[in-house]
Amino acid sequence: MTMFGLDETRVSELSAGVRGGMPGEPPEAAGEVFARAAWSGIAEPGDGTAGLLVASLGASVALTAILEAWSPVRIGALVRDVLADEPGAPDVVFATNPSSDHTEADADTSAELEQALDAGLQRWRPRLNSGDVIRSLQQAARVDARLLLATDTLWPATIDDLEQHAPLALWWRGVPGALAALPNSIALVGARAATGYGEHIAMEASAGLVDRGFAVVSGAAYGIDGMAHRAALASDGMTVAFLAGGVDRFYPSGHDSLLTRIVAAGAVISELPCGAAPTKWRFLQRNRLIAAASAATIVLEAGWRSGSLNTAGHASALGRPLGAVPGPITSPTSAGCHRLIREFAAVCVTNPTEMAELVGERSVQVPLDFSDTDTGPGPIPRTSDQVRVFDALSARSPRTVADLSRRAGLSTTAVRGALGGLDLDGAAQEREAGWVRRL
Amino acid sequence: MTMFGLDETRVSELSAGVRGGMPGEPPEAAGEVFARAAWSGIAEPGDGTAGLLVASLGASVALTAILEAWSPVRIGALVRDVLADEPGAPDVVFATNPSSDHTEADADTSAELEQALDAGLQRWRPRLNSGDVIRSLQQAARVDARLLLATDTLWPATIDDLEQHAPLALWWRGVPGALAALPNSIALVGARAATGYGEHIAMEASAGLVDRGFAVVSGAAYGIDGMAHRAALASDGMTVAFLAGGVDRFYPSGHDSLLTRIVAAGAVISELPCGAAPTKWRFLQRNRLIAAASAATIVLEAGWRSGSLNTAGHASALGRPLGAVPGPITSPTSAGCHRLIREFAAVCVTNPTEMAELVGERSVQVPLDFSDTDTGPGPIPRTSDQVRVFDALSARSPRTVADLSRRAGLSTTAVRGALGGLDLDGAAQEREAGWVRRL
Repeated sequence: MTMFGLDETRVSELSAGVRGGMPGEPPEAAGEVFARAAWSGIAEPGDGTAGLLVASLGASVALTAILEAWSPVRIGALVRDVLADEPGAPDVVFATNPSSDHTEADADTSAELEQALDAGLQRWRPRLNSGDVIRSLQQAARVDARLLLATDTLWPATIDDLEQHAPLALWWRGVPGALAALPNSIALVGARAATGYGEHIAMEASAGLVDRGFAVVSGAAYGIDGMAHRAALASDGMTVAFLAGGVDRFYPSGHDSLLTRIVAAGAVISELPCGAAPTKWRFLQRNRLIAAASAATIVLEAGWRSGSLNTAGHASALGRPLGAVPGPITSPTSAGCHRLIREFAAVCVTNPTEMAELVGERSVQVPLDFSDTDTGPGPIPRTSDQVRVFDALSARSPRTVADLSRRAGLSTTAVRGALGGLDLDGAAQEREAGWVRRL
Repeated sequence: MTMFGLDETRVSELSAGVRGGMPGEPPEAAGEVFARAAWSGIAEPGDGTAGLLVASLGASVALTAILEAWSPVRIGALVRDVLADEPGAPDVVFATNPSSDHTEADADTSAELEQALDAGLQRWRPRLNSGDVIRSLQQAARVDARLLLATDTLWPATIDDLEQHAPLALWWRGVPGALAALPNSIALVGARAATGYGEHIAMEASAGLVDRGFAVVSGAAYGIDGMAHRAALASDGMTVAFLAGGVDRFYPSGHDSLLTRIVAAGAVISELPCGAAPTKWRFLQRNRLIAAASAATIVLEAGWRSGSLNTAGHASALGRPLGAVPGPITSPTSAGCHRLIREFAAVCVTNPTEMAELVGERSVQVPLDFSDTDTGPGPIPRTSDQVRVFDALSARSPRTVADLSRRAGLSTTAVRGALGGLDLDGAAQEREAGWVRRL
């Protein structure tokens, strides 16, 4: 096996550096590990044609195919053979590179597959560079980053809901327990320019979810994200940060020490290799991982055009529960949350209990008693007759049943019945001259 | 015609005092006016049996029946005759006095109707007092209050959606235009213990709705209600206050001057005769009139058990659009609004435009572009390729198409296409050494 002209020993050595030390993981062929690492740098996040190709042929064969400049017709034939052999294979949509609007189409003919592959090859070839792969693997080994593959037990299975847009591999640093906690995690995301209100509710939400046994997922940005991670750490909870660049370069740099603490107690994850810079495109694609990896997404504060709405959109598209925390309508930083509630059916959540309920942990629902008012006498529910007789009673002047009947507009029988209940509650008392109100 | 032993002249005189001076109203028989006035004091608001009886026999005959102590069997037979003669009559539910839980039942047999009438007679008889009727009519004439009947052109037709629970008559003071504006009104209700935030949004909402041509309906309470009325008046808008007691006694007394101003420029309305005191029961029943008379109900601030939720419940039950304004989740005064949004499908409304949309005045919907972020370059929508090429451009170092292709993970063709668009936008510029980012 050679790849990029590297000999087998070199490939094995480089692969082992990012796969060693993980108990319970299958010993993947070094070539496949190396090829996945290469692919994570060749295809931009969310490249559906790359996803389809690698899923069909394996990363190693797929890499060989583009290194050796096989024709789209030859590659297409191989892919179609594999798909034909898999009767249970999902209904894959070809040509679904989300980055190329002009090639986006539902296609299931050979010609359309070949066209998608041709476009893909033109995207991938400029990046075929063994030096980049080697450098990223060496850098990963240096910072104790590990490459996680979809066959690993710690792979967050819900990410596969992204289908051909799922990441080809994930780079991560941290403790294994953080990856294991992802199925029971909730994403808290929001504005970078958070208000004091936003930071307060992020802290309460994160700590409250940790108390309820959830891990907290976010994007390590300033504002809401940072506060969500910080509060989770402060509560000794699990927290996972998904990054838009390599896990060796913490972004934003002002969160360097926070991210270091997350690595020590939780995990940072990226689909981009070490050395990769975060770009706007990668932030948008990173958001799909946050939505897919967590059991629910909650937007805590977001402007009208906030990037958090992008994460919310992914969560909705994946059928994940979506919550939004309301805020003052006078705060532009809450406008995005209200928009999600109003136009996108996000659930209005106001405390950690309601957030936990999003993933099915329902608390007891207390029926809404519309007949009570602000100044109501408290928790004792009253019948309509009791309300009217209580209205008619005086605390000072004892009133007869006949008088109460006239005042309350009720028959004497109904008044007597209501007085019985009020008497039991301690709300009415009979004296010699008649009934008086108590309480 | 005698009633309570009063002669015809006296009845006509008393009736004329509360019916005179209204142009365009039909000259109702004085006896019917007098009897409606009497009924408004005999039956408590929302008494469905009284509603059925008066609707079937007319107020005058119905009053004679109870004054002369006709038997429930006799009255029931008359009612059933009328209903049988009306093939288009609604499917009336008997025995539906909402104030008597124990008699509440779907009933359509003679026995059940008679039972409901028997219970009704027991409620009404203690209040048969000609002195009360005369005093309330005299007091009404003194304060220029008028009696509005369901046959009047100014009667708010939507109130009839309350069916047998509709008011038997409405007492009101103010300008006729205020009644005419009710079909185009929106109710703004909320907490008495409003916060500064709540008062601010009530003011903005009321003024904004007036600007859009709506009348503002509310309950004249302290807090949100008062601010809604005040802002409507300040904007030279129409406003109508529904009261829980007689229109001659303004409640709360602290709103005496506000209510005086409402009478001068709008209207106050009550189903209770002059002299009647507001009671808890009457506040709850008053809320059904607010919900029924306005085209939509919006709760601006409300505690978890606020009386405003009662109004909201009536609006929902009547199929009226219901809106709620969110607020800080840290404010107990917004908990009721969040609850309405979360559990009772209230629409989350954050400005007067959205409030107006509740009644069908829809503004243009701007589709939500999930691919934009906080720091996005503004209003120009970009294709995915453009986003990625823009990411890859530098403002200082010119880059070749090949370089951009590698950096963006796009084919050179796609890069050239994207650069074309960015060039047109002014976001990219070609120099001798390659392309640079602008903006």
